[in-house]
Amino acid sequence: MGSDTTFEAVGGGVLAPQGFVAAGVAAGIKKPGKLDVCVLAAHDAVPAAAVFTKNTMAAPPVVLSRRHVASGRIRAVVTNSGNANACTGDPGLSDALRMAEAVAEGLECAPTDVIVASTGVIGVPMPMDKVLPGISGALANLKTGTGEQAARAIMTTDTFAKQTAVRVHAHGHEYTAGGMSKGSGMIMPNMATMLAYVTTDAPLTPEACDKALRDAVDLTFNRITVDSDTSTNDMCCLLASGAAGGDAIGTDDPAYPAVASAILHVCRELARMIVRDGEGATKFIEVTVRGAASDADAREAAMSIANSPLFKTAIFGGDANWGRVVMALGKSSARVDPSAVEVVFAGILTCKDGAAFPFDEEAASTALAADEVEVLVDLHIGEGRSTVWTCDLSYEYVRINGEYRT
Amino acid sequence: MGSDTTFEAVGGGVLAPQGFVAAGVAAGIKKPGKLDVCVLAAHDAVPAAAVFTKNTMAAPPVVLSRRHVASGRIRAVVTNSGNANACTGDPGLSDALRMAEAVAEGLECAPTDVIVASTGVIGVPMPMDKVLPGISGALANLKTGTGEQAARAIMTTDTFAKQTAVRVHAHGHEYTAGGMSKGSGMIMPNMATMLAYVTTDAPLTPEACDKALRDAVDLTFNRITVDSDTSTNDMCCLLASGAAGGDAIGTDDPAYPAVASAILHVCRELARMIVRDGEGATKFIEVTVRGAASDADAREAAMSIANSPLFKTAIFGGDANWGRVVMALGKSSARVDPSAVEVVFAGILTCKDGAAFPFDEEAASTALAADEVEVLVDLHIGEGRSTVWTCDLSYEYVRINGEYRT
Repeated sequence: MGSDTTFEAVGGGVLAPQGFVAAGVAAGIKKPGKLDVCVLAAHDAVPAAAVFTKNTMAAPPVVLSRRHVASGRIRAVVTNSGNANACTGDPGLSDALRMAEAVAEGLECAPTDVIVASTGVIGVPMPMDKVLPGISGALANLKTGTGEQAARAIMTTDTFAKQTAVRVHAHGHEYTAGGMSKGSGMIMPNMATMLAYVTTDAPLTPEACDKALRDAVDLTFNRITVDSDTSTNDMCCLLASGAAGGDAIGTDDPAYPAVASAILHVCRELARMIVRDGEGATKFIEVTVRGAASDADAREAAMSIANSPLFKTAIFGGDANWGRVVMALGKSSARVDPSAVEVVFAGILTCKDGAAFPFDEEAASTALAADEVEVLVDLHIGEGRSTVWTCDLSYEYVRINGEYRT
Repeated sequence: MGSDTTFEAVGGGVLAPQGFVAAGVAAGIKKPGKLDVCVLAAHDAVPAAAVFTKNTMAAPPVVLSRRHVASGRIRAVVTNSGNANACTGDPGLSDALRMAEAVAEGLECAPTDVIVASTGVIGVPMPMDKVLPGISGALANLKTGTGEQAARAIMTTDTFAKQTAVRVHAHGHEYTAGGMSKGSGMIMPNMATMLAYVTTDAPLTPEACDKALRDAVDLTFNRITVDSDTSTNDMCCLLASGAAGGDAIGTDDPAYPAVASAILHVCRELARMIVRDGEGATKFIEVTVRGAASDADAREAAMSIANSPLFKTAIFGGDANWGRVVMALGKSSARVDPSAVEVVFAGILTCKDGAAFPFDEEAASTALAADEVEVLVDLHIGEGRSTVWTCDLSYEYVRINGEYRT
């Protein structure tokens, strides 16, 4: 992740890297005319990795895809939005498998080369009479599809399509990493999902894919929270086409850090887009805890703050309510020295040595009127550090999530 | 806790048991005319116990009171509302001690015989020029004060005074247990607190006080959640005057179960009142998880459901959104067999064998229109069971907590 690595932003999202095709079509799972089936495919079964939700009630497509990605090679990812295929029992698993088989047939590969993802309403049988024709349609349009179209087809209550891509030069080669994601909190009508897809044309080995993805997810998608709720369908996958050429890149290869850094960059951009699109969000919040006994402690404390409904409503109200930061810090398992805690709220020192520090409320109100708010907590007991991103809790969140499914 | 124990509801709150006096006065810490200082006293230093917040940023009065109650005997509890004396550093600890000393002087006891509790705004120095005269005023009025007056004096954003009392007969004696509490979520302007005070005239030993209180709190105050946030000032104490007469009651005494049961009953009533008065609450929710691998698993799962913002907003919206129950169950650490999960939502079976079960949406809407909603989850893998109480998440919660402190 050397600081000498420079990125060049490029267009195209998941199709920015060479060696991929994609298409999104409207299959009628969502409202008529809305894109709801997406196929993303490489030229062959290529090195790949994926991480999935830790929710013990994981949906059938997650169960199936976990098995398929275990080989370290994947040809394609098929996604439908509008139905999560969750809490659907054995029929749900059969439906997920049929989706993989339909893609495999079209691409002439094995069903185990296909990852399946679903997002949308739960507990409703999959409308396979719409899903299967949708997959056929997407396969037929693979050569003409765009990254933007693919990103639109995976959306549920997202208010904008989320995609990004960067190019990086390393050791005489040019590599590109791109991605798309969806998610804006758990989503009505029932619940939904964070899905993220990252592509690269770097010739990463399966092991390098796995490490690059896990390291990136740990610092990005695992550092965001909208409402502390975790879906049954979350997934993030990485496919490496190798189309940029050159020798295979393992984790010890000199080119690995630059490629991993590009993947991290893509994941960070996508993660931040999800928070920005958080249900009802009016502000983007960055919480950093430093000076902790360990990085794990710092993360625990930062997440406790970022998930506190009282902290989030205070930010919505434009209130420099640092007491809630202290409260949320204190309820976490992070080690603290109560007399050493320092809180800087939107750039303003509000708590020092664990006690209130006089500050200008007017200046604080002005600082909190910005779209982005940074909260920094220094525990002054060690070197541990972590940053997480979240959004505020607004009336709109309650409205979106309190509405009838009907 | 034998099922043959019968309670008789009585009035008087904390003063229902013999051997206690109390008074609440308006000292000007809150708005003029609002009761904000309360002294509750026994005739002597009597067996007592207390449990405190686990928040590592515990406020000075908590730090002081932990020390004082360690002896197992307490004469009085002094409480002020309007200022939490939290994040106030060494001066805050001195102020808490001065409050104990002021009470001790008036009652002619040791300062270590006094528990101090504060609730209200944090990070603001205690207005001792108001607090100390308030304590003098309360001491002067101890003989004429009422339980209702005491309960009012500890309120912050509570919309009603919370008190209850019951009488129980056991082994030829009549014992009374009473209590009062405050709390309705963490409270503006900064944060606040759950405080609960339980009195009994049963001659419990200090050890019996400790066990009866801890057992009761574990099943009541530790089973409620408004917004998952935990204050710096939470406290629950029990004082046993012994004024009902008879020999001391240890935990092995035949009369102990009846007295402990009365204390549990009082705590349960108070805990439920706090949830009913939850900030912005429109519905009271009971979540029961049974069939878990252990009671601890059941509690973990029930708390995960009760704290889920998505679940709480669905209840606010009157939506039988059982998928969010499954999601929140799955994100907890409780062991589950995904194919065995059963969810009964407001009396209606919605999920069986881990999959959707067809139900009448109209009947569900009707059931959800009630003020109280029960959600039952059966994991069908063991005998573990737990019930927790919470409230819904409404626009009003966001309004109350998003407003400026000013």
